[in-house]
Amino acid sequence: MSEDRLTDTIKPTVELIRRKRDGQALSEAELQHLLREFEMGNVLDSQMSAFAMATCIRGMTAEETYCLTKAMLESGKTIEWDSSTSVVDKHSTGGVGDKASLLIAPLLASFGVRVPMISGRGLGITGGTLDKLESIPGFNCSLSLEAIQSAVQANGCIIAGATDEIAPADRKLYSLRDVTGTVASIPLITSSILSKKLAENPQALIFDVKCGTGTSMLTLEAARDLATSLVTTCKRFNVKAKAIITDMEQPLGTAIGNAAEVREALLTFHGSGPADLVHLATTFAFELLKLAGKEIPFNDVTANLTNGHAQNHFEAMIEKQGGRLCQLPAIHWTPLIATQEGYLESVATGDLGSLLVRMGGGRQHPGATIDPTVAIAVAKKIGDKINKGDVLGAIAHPSAKPYLNELNEMLTISSTPTDPRPLIMGTVDQ
Amino acid sequence: MSEDRLTDTIKPTVELIRRKRDGQALSEAELQHLLREFEMGNVLDSQMSAFAMATCIRGMTAEETYCLTKAMLESGKTIEWDSSTSVVDKHSTGGVGDKASLLIAPLLASFGVRVPMISGRGLGITGGTLDKLESIPGFNCSLSLEAIQSAVQANGCIIAGATDEIAPADRKLYSLRDVTGTVASIPLITSSILSKKLAENPQALIFDVKCGTGTSMLTLEAARDLATSLVTTCKRFNVKAKAIITDMEQPLGTAIGNAAEVREALLTFHGSGPADLVHLATTFAFELLKLAGKEIPFNDVTANLTNGHAQNHFEAMIEKQGGRLCQLPAIHWTPLIATQEGYLESVATGDLGSLLVRMGGGRQHPGATIDPTVAIAVAKKIGDKINKGDVLGAIAHPSAKPYLNELNEMLTISSTPTDPRPLIMGTVDQ
Repeated sequence: MSEDRLTDTIKPTVELIRRKRDGQALSEAELQHLLREFEMGNVLDSQMSAFAMATCIRGMTAEETYCLTKAMLESGKTIEWDSSTSVVDKHSTGGVGDKASLLIAPLLASFGVRVPMISGRGLGITGGTLDKLESIPGFNCSLSLEAIQSAVQANGCIIAGATDEIAPADRKLYSLRDVTGTVASIPLITSSILSKKLAENPQALIFDVKCGTGTSMLTLEAARDLATSLVTTCKRFNVKAKAIITDMEQPLGTAIGNAAEVREALLTFHGSGPADLVHLATTFAFELLKLAGKEIPFNDVTANLTNGHAQNHFEAMIEKQGGRLCQLPAIHWTPLIATQEGYLESVATGDLGSLLVRMGGGRQHPGATIDPTVAIAVAKKIGDKINKGDVLGAIAHPSAKPYLNELNEMLTISSTPTDPRPLIMGTVDQ
Repeated sequence: MSEDRLTDTIKPTVELIRRKRDGQALSEAELQHLLREFEMGNVLDSQMSAFAMATCIRGMTAEETYCLTKAMLESGKTIEWDSSTSVVDKHSTGGVGDKASLLIAPLLASFGVRVPMISGRGLGITGGTLDKLESIPGFNCSLSLEAIQSAVQANGCIIAGATDEIAPADRKLYSLRDVTGTVASIPLITSSILSKKLAENPQALIFDVKCGTGTSMLTLEAARDLATSLVTTCKRFNVKAKAIITDMEQPLGTAIGNAAEVREALLTFHGSGPADLVHLATTFAFELLKLAGKEIPFNDVTANLTNGHAQNHFEAMIEKQGGRLCQLPAIHWTPLIATQEGYLESVATGDLGSLLVRMGGGRQHPGATIDPTVAIAVAKKIGDKINKGDVLGAIAHPSAKPYLNELNEMLTISSTPTDPRPLIMGTVDQ
């Protein structure tokens, strides 16, 4: 880049940053300029970071969020489908023990819709679907858009990572946000999620917006704001969408840890899955099929989860992506036994996520390696009666003992009965 | 820097940025960490830019501003004086036609105090004292702290630029602020000014905080906030300080342009200076001498400005720094003649600053070269009676004509009398 070119770009860029700093809205052309020049290297990382911080604090209008998403989407390629089949997808904002995507993608495919699920990796307390799948030896999640498309046409579903073809401006911005304290911004989260999901060119999207100490949205109000932003922005792109806000004050299902969560998904296909996980997976599949115009009875959706149909799609998907399910690592659990009776009152869910990271099963920073075999289990749900000698949970780690003590401290047992927590906290429709 | 080191630093840094983003105050140790690691390259430019933006929007407490200033000051060296003589300095926040420092430094020196004035360059609409002095052929403003000290000991005053020895963290941060829309922040401006001024190790400082369209502080409230921040922060460093808020709704003096302003300073030493410039220079010198414990009668201060004493110090200073005053470029003025009678109602002062930049006499971005011989003159003050045929002002440029038209449009003449504007709008004491 020549010195002149830099100067030409910097001046209007500084003006745009200043306007966002002062709480003003930017136009579509201005946001396009910013993203395009950023991707080309003419807007400096320092400038984009200042802009992201101003956006974090000042926010964006719904129209700006749409324009930012559009600019990020248009920085990459999208899949073009023939018009004969519905393309749908589900996205979770990330929680502790959330392996639902492993069930939902093949469950949807079992009803003849296409699910080109572009997913992410875990960072901090929440796990990532790709990390879970990579605990299966041989599994490859780096597929070109072309490969994603042909695999989906063959088997109905795929779960893969975002490649350089998809929203490269988002990738570049996200790596800055991660180190500059600008992750927690509803317009930036919305545009980051949707620029990838919309690259799949879907007819309908459903969002699992997690809420609670085990995720980034701590309050129902914050979760509802994000849900509304996602659903509203989809509408501007003519994509049908719904968001369901689900509870993250306790893990979803029992297992937390990559290979352990794949094992829990396999158990679920065999009919032995935790009730909350089954409830969530079937509800999301049912609602998304409805959004896509397929009115499938709820019982039929539930049936396909355990009658082998979803499992067949899951196994075909894993095989297609090179994974050898038969070599999935074994998990060596050391149980945590209850020494007092009472009722499970609360679970320090965020702390469980942090514990998994410290045990080596998650990552503190991008690129860190993880051990797929370490895991935590929480065998009880809030409100459950606990008797002395019950298995409260378990740790899978070569030196489990200190972690068992930590796990024990994260589970608060009360002598008085506590109400169970409803899984679904609310929904947001278009 | 190793990968591990980066990771170790990034995590606490992100936490600090997040806390500022959320409007929390940081401790002295935290601000020190941030600045020290930034200077060492362990805090990324993108991180510091996000922090600067969060500071711009969320502000800082007086204690944080002090700690930030201290951290920036301690990133460099300071001058150590023997205790026998008062060391004082004056700083202007920058305006159009503001050549007062050229008069004040030697005027102060003529009363036996030491003035190691570390000054800056112009950027945007406001000029810089160093640029004015560099219109004198041979003048060198790049002096080491040691050279500054010995020159001041010999002649009483010096005007030089900040070197790498002085507050390097400020220099590094300022270059980011300039491109990230984070210049307009009272704590950041305060720490940037004071980290350089305090490196001079002065007993007393006086601040000319400009207010109006010809500077960055547009309102009296904003100017008072900055004045208070400067004076309060000095108090924490046990440095006596006073701020005087002066009007920048019209240029100071008559000439705007580097060599033209040096010529106006020389005229002032000869007793022919514009009244507002004389008033400002003598007031600031008088007040600063008082702060330093020297109660000089105001008339004596006024006398020294034009009796040769200040001029001797000025000429010795220029000679010491290699300047050849006899070779100062001539200015070729084309006058602007009044074609209507009335009263000067207003002056588009910021536009005058921009016009000088467009004529080549100022810079849009750091490092741009400037032509010291181009200039604008405004011969009337707001409230002055104008008669047809009066010289309203002038342009010094090889093709003056279009600029004369522009200048004419920047001067609003009303048919009804207008009050003159007082130069001094307020003062802030410790």
